[in-house]
Amino acid sequence: MSKSRIDALSDGVFAILLTILILEFQPETIKPGSLNQVVLHQAPLFLMYLLSYFYVGTSWLFHHDYFQYVKRTNRTLNVLNLFVLFTVTLVNYAMVLLIEALSDGNTSDIRLAFIVYDLVALLISLSFLLLYRYLEHHPELQTVERSGITSHYERIRLDPARSVSIYLLSMIATSFSNLVAGILLIAGVVFHFIAYLRFSRVVHIATNEKTNNLTK
Amino acid sequence: MSKSRIDALSDGVFAILLTILILEFQPETIKPGSLNQVVLHQAPLFLMYLLSYFYVGTSWLFHHDYFQYVKRTNRTLNVLNLFVLFTVTLVNYAMVLLIEALSDGNTSDIRLAFIVYDLVALLISLSFLLLYRYLEHHPELQTVERSGITSHYERIRLDPARSVSIYLLSMIATSFSNLVAGILLIAGVVFHFIAYLRFSRVVHIATNEKTNNLTK
Amino acid sequence: MSKSRIDALSDGVFAILLTILILEFQPETIKPGSLNQVVLHQAPLFLMYLLSYFYVGTSWLFHHDYFQYVKRTNRTLNVLNLFVLFTVTLVNYAMVLLIEALSDGNTSDIRLAFIVYDLVALLISLSFLLLYRYLEHHPELQTVERSGITSHYERIRLDPARSVSIYLLSMIATSFSNLVAGILLIAGVVFHFIAYLRFSRVVHIATNEKTNNLTK
Amino acid sequence: MSKSRIDALSDGVFAILLTILILEFQPETIKPGSLNQVVLHQAPLFLMYLLSYFYVGTSWLFHHDYFQYVKRTNRTLNVLNLFVLFTVTLVNYAMVLLIEALSDGNTSDIRLAFIVYDLVALLISLSFLLLYRYLEHHPELQTVERSGITSHYERIRLDPARSVSIYLLSMIATSFSNLVAGILLIAGVVFHFIAYLRFSRVVHIATNEKTNNLTK
Repeated sequence: MSKSRIDALSDGVFAILLTILILEFQPETIKPGSLNQVVLHQAPLFLMYLLSYFYVGTSWLFHHDYFQYVKRTNRTLNVLNLFVLFTVTLVNYAMVLLIEALSDGNTSDIRLAFIVYDLVALLISLSFLLLYRYLEHHPELQTVERSGITSHYERIRLDPARSVSIYLLSMIATSFSNLVAGILLIAGVVFHFIAYLRFSRVVHIATNEKTNNLTK
Repeated sequence: MSKSRIDALSDGVFAILLTILILEFQPETIKPGSLNQVVLHQAPLFLMYLLSYFYVGTSWLFHHDYFQYVKRTNRTLNVLNLFVLFTVTLVNYAMVLLIEALSDGNTSDIRLAFIVYDLVALLISLSFLLLYRYLEHHPELQTVERSGITSHYERIRLDPARSVSIYLLSMIATSFSNLVAGILLIAGVVFHFIAYLRFSRVVHIATNEKTNNLTK
Repeated sequence: MSKSRIDALSDGVFAILLTILILEFQPETIKPGSLNQVVLHQAPLFLMYLLSYFYVGTSWLFHHDYFQYVKRTNRTLNVLNLFVLFTVTLVNYAMVLLIEALSDGNTSDIRLAFIVYDLVALLISLSFLLLYRYLEHHPELQTVERSGITSHYERIRLDPARSVSIYLLSMIATSFSNLVAGILLIAGVVFHFIAYLRFSRVVHIATNEKTNNLTK
Repeated sequence: MSKSRIDALSDGVFAILLTILILEFQPETIKPGSLNQVVLHQAPLFLMYLLSYFYVGTSWLFHHDYFQYVKRTNRTLNVLNLFVLFTVTLVNYAMVLLIEALSDGNTSDIRLAFIVYDLVALLISLSFLLLYRYLEHHPELQTVERSGITSHYERIRLDPARSVSIYLLSMIATSFSNLVAGILLIAGVVFHFIAYLRFSRVVHIATNEKTNNLTK
């Protein structure tokens, strides 16, 4: 089956997620003359929007590169992809909880919001992991042969485990410090992006080697 | 007429539906320190979001496989497709009613919400049925010849009737037990997914046989 | 310039409009046990949602067939297309006003809402008219030659004028009867769909004649 | 890497932005019989919707023409494009602030809203500038050769600087007159569109010259 529609659906979901995140970040009622207080109050929340946009954007980059690597789709891949998209939509919910909790400033609310965000991040990592493992075991769906990528793949093999560890540490950290938990959550999202850069380099090298072999 | 735009519009509508469902599932006002109660209270509602996402996702899978099977579109198919998309958008309304009814816990509200959800499910099944019947009677639009699929088609021919029966039973069940009605509704959605797996296998077998015949 | 992106942007806008219309049609606050009243109260409003979906859907059908007829795009067509999409987004605003006015039942509110809806319909007709006139005068952008379509085109030439007349009559009717105005508005939207069927038949005939001439 | 998905994601984001802007422009609660006051009150706000639609539409036109000019994408271009899309989503936030501020009519609120809108416009200009500079330094990603476009490019080279100057002037103007600031902001958006017309003419000439050279 052609992968054009799985691409179209996924790009649609990512485009909507990237765009509707801003909808949550809006003043609801403003007393005349108090807009500067409202905007100032929103400044730290803006960081949460930035973080979530960055996170969903990185997930799109992973998804984009992954499907460069896929020749055609099948029923199972379609279902797995719907699961990936499902987990990514949850970022919206987690972000709203975090914005609400940071707005009211209550410690136990913030702790819970961090735990929910971390859980969503774990689910996203898990869903992408399923997607990758499935492709590894179905060479007939791949554009690049397994052999070409294996040697480089070892270097990034543990990246998902690293990602998962950071989010788990952030969850544990909520029990003694929301500041540490928050820093670890941000670190997890940033590491997610670094992992993408590493992953994309491996795919790039493998694709080039294959091309070189073909043109030799 | 090329089917690229009917695919693009449909993928757009499905992508938006899959994504905006989460927007309905959000706390509106939180008293500081009460976020855990809000989140706990939402846990059962989360199941309704999961159910609706799963339902719309399965509808996309059906739609995806159906159009694999379509060579080109025409005016009537475009109009029928708009009707299919219309019925699928109603899932959003049905889900919101169900979430509201389950939130307030009133028995007659929940009964009504189940009936509305079942009606929407019936409408979706009906609209897809029209789409399939139309294609059956227009072999010039098909990629796979009728003859190739008929023998296998018999096995799944009654699946839409089975689907419709489950939703009707769920509607009847609301008159004596919301629990039974709810279980039947969930069973209907799960059966919808099973019917997809059966349908997709038939299309797959028929397409392979055709390919085998061509390469013989 | 390739028309793939103008198609993609337009399909995106139409898909979103078709889907977000349902978002406006939702109960906001429900007292336990009153869901049946809420749903009954919404039944007539549901007709407005149906009407607006049908209207935007028909606009997509026009847009779809129009671009079948376009070989490639240029800067002016891109700008005109953005204007068309702009006028179509206004349906959402007009529908919300109408739903609000019908909900509160005030005669002067309903009159105003009909006038706004009629104005939006006039703007949409105008924007499509500009799109058609532009293509008529730029044969280098057409897939079908002008000569092939002219003879049939005469039959539908006055359809846009007919459409515009109905909406104008509906606006005038608001000054003595909202019922007549409402019926005329619905008639205008239904005629819009009939005009599409007529337009699409002409394009179909012209395309076939051209194909026949080529294969002779 | 093929640029089909970067196009799809971007068209999705632009389509959503163009469409959801109208969602912000809606009456929330209407007292029976007061719809005409509500609509009259919204008339000036409608101008802000028009301005924002026009601004996002122009950004799409720039983006569209830019990618005509791009042969294929790479990792850095994907990331830069996500940054461009991010800055464009902020128009929604800036428009809502402006609508709220103009609604309540408070001078200091309006001043702040103009400053935020100007800042967003500056960010958008900056993000597009990064996109252009990156392409300039990576001829391997271009469809048109550098040499072909350089001579014409000089004429529009300062347009981004002109754009940035207008928005900066508008920000400065808020300190003495919101009217001047508003006029400058509108002038900036209109100049943005004029700059697009100039830019698109240069690309058009360069592409034609290249084609002429090839067919000579």
